[in-house]
Amino acid sequence: MKQELMKLLMELAEKRDYRTLKEKLSEMNEVDVAEFLDELTPEKRIVVYRTLSKEQATEVFSCLDVESQQHIINSITDWELGEIVEDLFMDDVVDMLEELPANVVKRVMQNATPDTRKLINQFLKYPENSAGSIMTAEFIDLKKHTTVEQAFAHIRKTAMDKEDIYTCFVTDANRVLEGVVTVRELLLSPYESAVEELMDPNVISVTTTEDQEVVADLFSKYDLLTIPVVDTENRLVGIVTVDDAVEVMEQEATEDFEKMAAMAPSEKPYLKTGVFSLAKNRIGWLLVLMISGMFTGAILQRYEEAFAVMPLLVTFIPMLTDTGGNAGSQSSTLIIRGMALSEIQTGDFFRVLWKEVRVSLLVGAALALINFVRLMIFYPGNFMLCLTVVLSMLATVIIAKAVGGILPIVAKVFHADPAIMAAPLITTIVDALSLVIYFNIAVQLLHLA
Amino acid sequence: MKQELMKLLMELAEKRDYRTLKEKLSEMNEVDVAEFLDELTPEKRIVVYRTLSKEQATEVFSCLDVESQQHIINSITDWELGEIVEDLFMDDVVDMLEELPANVVKRVMQNATPDTRKLINQFLKYPENSAGSIMTAEFIDLKKHTTVEQAFAHIRKTAMDKEDIYTCFVTDANRVLEGVVTVRELLLSPYESAVEELMDPNVISVTTTEDQEVVADLFSKYDLLTIPVVDTENRLVGIVTVDDAVEVMEQEATEDFEKMAAMAPSEKPYLKTGVFSLAKNRIGWLLVLMISGMFTGAILQRYEEAFAVMPLLVTFIPMLTDTGGNAGSQSSTLIIRGMALSEIQTGDFFRVLWKEVRVSLLVGAALALINFVRLMIFYPGNFMLCLTVVLSMLATVIIAKAVGGILPIVAKVFHADPAIMAAPLITTIVDALSLVIYFNIAVQLLHLA
Repeated sequence: MKQELMKLLMELAEKRDYRTLKEKLSEMNEVDVAEFLDELTPEKRIVVYRTLSKEQATEVFSCLDVESQQHIINSITDWELGEIVEDLFMDDVVDMLEELPANVVKRVMQNATPDTRKLINQFLKYPENSAGSIMTAEFIDLKKHTTVEQAFAHIRKTAMDKEDIYTCFVTDANRVLEGVVTVRELLLSPYESAVEELMDPNVISVTTTEDQEVVADLFSKYDLLTIPVVDTENRLVGIVTVDDAVEVMEQEATEDFEKMAAMAPSEKPYLKTGVFSLAKNRIGWLLVLMISGMFTGAILQRYEEAFAVMPLLVTFIPMLTDTGGNAGSQSSTLIIRGMALSEIQTGDFFRVLWKEVRVSLLVGAALALINFVRLMIFYPGNFMLCLTVVLSMLATVIIAKAVGGILPIVAKVFHADPAIMAAPLITTIVDALSLVIYFNIAVQLLHLA
Repeated sequence: MKQELMKLLMELAEKRDYRTLKEKLSEMNEVDVAEFLDELTPEKRIVVYRTLSKEQATEVFSCLDVESQQHIINSITDWELGEIVEDLFMDDVVDMLEELPANVVKRVMQNATPDTRKLINQFLKYPENSAGSIMTAEFIDLKKHTTVEQAFAHIRKTAMDKEDIYTCFVTDANRVLEGVVTVRELLLSPYESAVEELMDPNVISVTTTEDQEVVADLFSKYDLLTIPVVDTENRLVGIVTVDDAVEVMEQEATEDFEKMAAMAPSEKPYLKTGVFSLAKNRIGWLLVLMISGMFTGAILQRYEEAFAVMPLLVTFIPMLTDTGGNAGSQSSTLIIRGMALSEIQTGDFFRVLWKEVRVSLLVGAALALINFVRLMIFYPGNFMLCLTVVLSMLATVIIAKAVGGILPIVAKVFHADPAIMAAPLITTIVDALSLVIYFNIAVQLLHLA
């Protein structure tokens, strides 16, 4: 939404010109109306919300922040609340209930019809991040012997309540999924054809317990608009629509960004997360990595004599460890992302290793050469020191890239999340390795022991 | 696709049992058939491809790797090639042509009809990563005075060639976009209604030069299936469908992962990228960061005397710089991702800074406390050393988080990509700052100067 429009709406609300405001809002997209309502004070919000037409009100309600939803629920009558709950799509109801406080949830449940209440309870039971937890109950189901004409009559009658009307599912008397037919196919067929002749019996479906990430991958692989969700007996219980899959993709990518930066994934957007939650998400890995840093320090301690004799050695440590860390995290990032997109499998272990070794030879040689030139200029005559730094650089890059490339795959083999093998952990491992290499080369070449 | 199915298909191709193979393939999804064809040798691939029905062949063709597409183009007649080009959606044609070698492109263009050729040339001209570069030309357009009945007749007649038939666009005689109407609304309306009464004149549209990332954000914000693309005079020239938006989202997230790990974004998946390309993408930032590492080394050199007197000081460097780098990259990652998802704006500068300062106080105090206990046990009596490390740790975490939180926003203010302010650059900056703090505290408290 444009900034100017938002400003204009705010002014109208300020001036209490609800008539003009109502007119403006009625032409707007529900997402934008919700964005505007979320910005208002709770009192104004409920006044403006009440000016919306009933149909727009439900659409807007499902797009509001949970806080705004709660304010509205607390300000409307039981009857109005019941209407909203019946009109919302099941996935929006469940999303909302999962975040509302217990007393508000209780009131919502009391005002739902027995059927809806039963459905809500069933949906709330699906495990977090499963297909069941993101699906909705509103879909169009047809029978095999329905004709195209009957199918259209059915769609016309029920379409207002359905989340996706363009994909219809064919089920038998026991609700077992038998096939899928699109409105496109129905439109292109004569009225007297039976659905059975048109339907595709090879349906791409998922079970309620399937991981939501797998569901999102299916959408992206097969370019789908809807995926049916079945129970263990292949009975159709819900559908996941592409907009929910898009949300899952963004959420999973965000989680990977967070994990790869050594944080526990957060539930809410940054600005809405409290300081204590943010601190809690960050402290765990910082602590682990700080302790690893202590071990690296202990390694350094073993070479105290070497740098007591030649303090200059210390000044190359940041360059070596930084480059090692960066080289390693480049590799690990590509592999982790490749595995997240199913482009790289655990079976590619040796292909990845071989590729990383060759890349690291190229990159390492280039960086070593630049160092060589620089050191020969700044420390002329000190050839052995120069050789120490150059060899350490080459070895560090090779080890960093090999380790960065294969550790995420190793993690996957042991059913751990490859993302935990990202930058911070690789950096810590490579730090320790590069220091050992550096000082061992130094002790040998510079005869420090 | 299941592993066993792939194995079975491979065996059938091996045994040249093309009849059974054809039967199996005819029941499969085009994405899976393409996956199977991509695995075959070029000779087998063309034989199997020729067994497919004409309709399935085109669908499969658009899902193949560019290498496979090229093999097939080189093995078919001009007439067959012409048929394929006419049947493909324009976005698939353009994607393919952008990757084919010039001589193959020439042959494809020669076998397209003049109209298609003109359209292809027009589409190839849109800038990379623009809405124009991902849109397709196949959409359904209606006129204001068309009735619902006429609209359905039009859809039935043309739907086979259209990418998305569920969103219809209303244009005037000059092709200017006037409104949008969905098949759902048409289905729910009486046959005699005019499209004008049903259409929504407030269409969410983009211009051909709009950044593809902005287009993808609109899909995710408004839960759309299609967005119309217009030229500067608001004439409808194409549509972007949600499957393309999904691809853009994955591609943009991958680019951010790469940039945040200090790499130039790659064009192709990891396993298909050559060793030289990989090395080229990585060397630039490694070089920049290595040189920054040299500067950090130069800072250390200023304190050579201090650690010559007390070599023990050196052993705390890895812990301090690692923790600083990790603390900073946690913050920068959250802010960069938040800005990519439009959850954080540049106007949130002070909110972010204030939040990061409070989080860093909590986290820094916890880490400092743990260090204090550890140091008092391992280095009893050395209270001043202990205090030096503890104070440096606290200061490092605070500075790291403040810098990590605000630098991505600063980058955005100067119209630079916030992602370049990610882990590696923050680490380098924080490294230098934390060393300066550490040694200054050490010099003061331990009287080393």
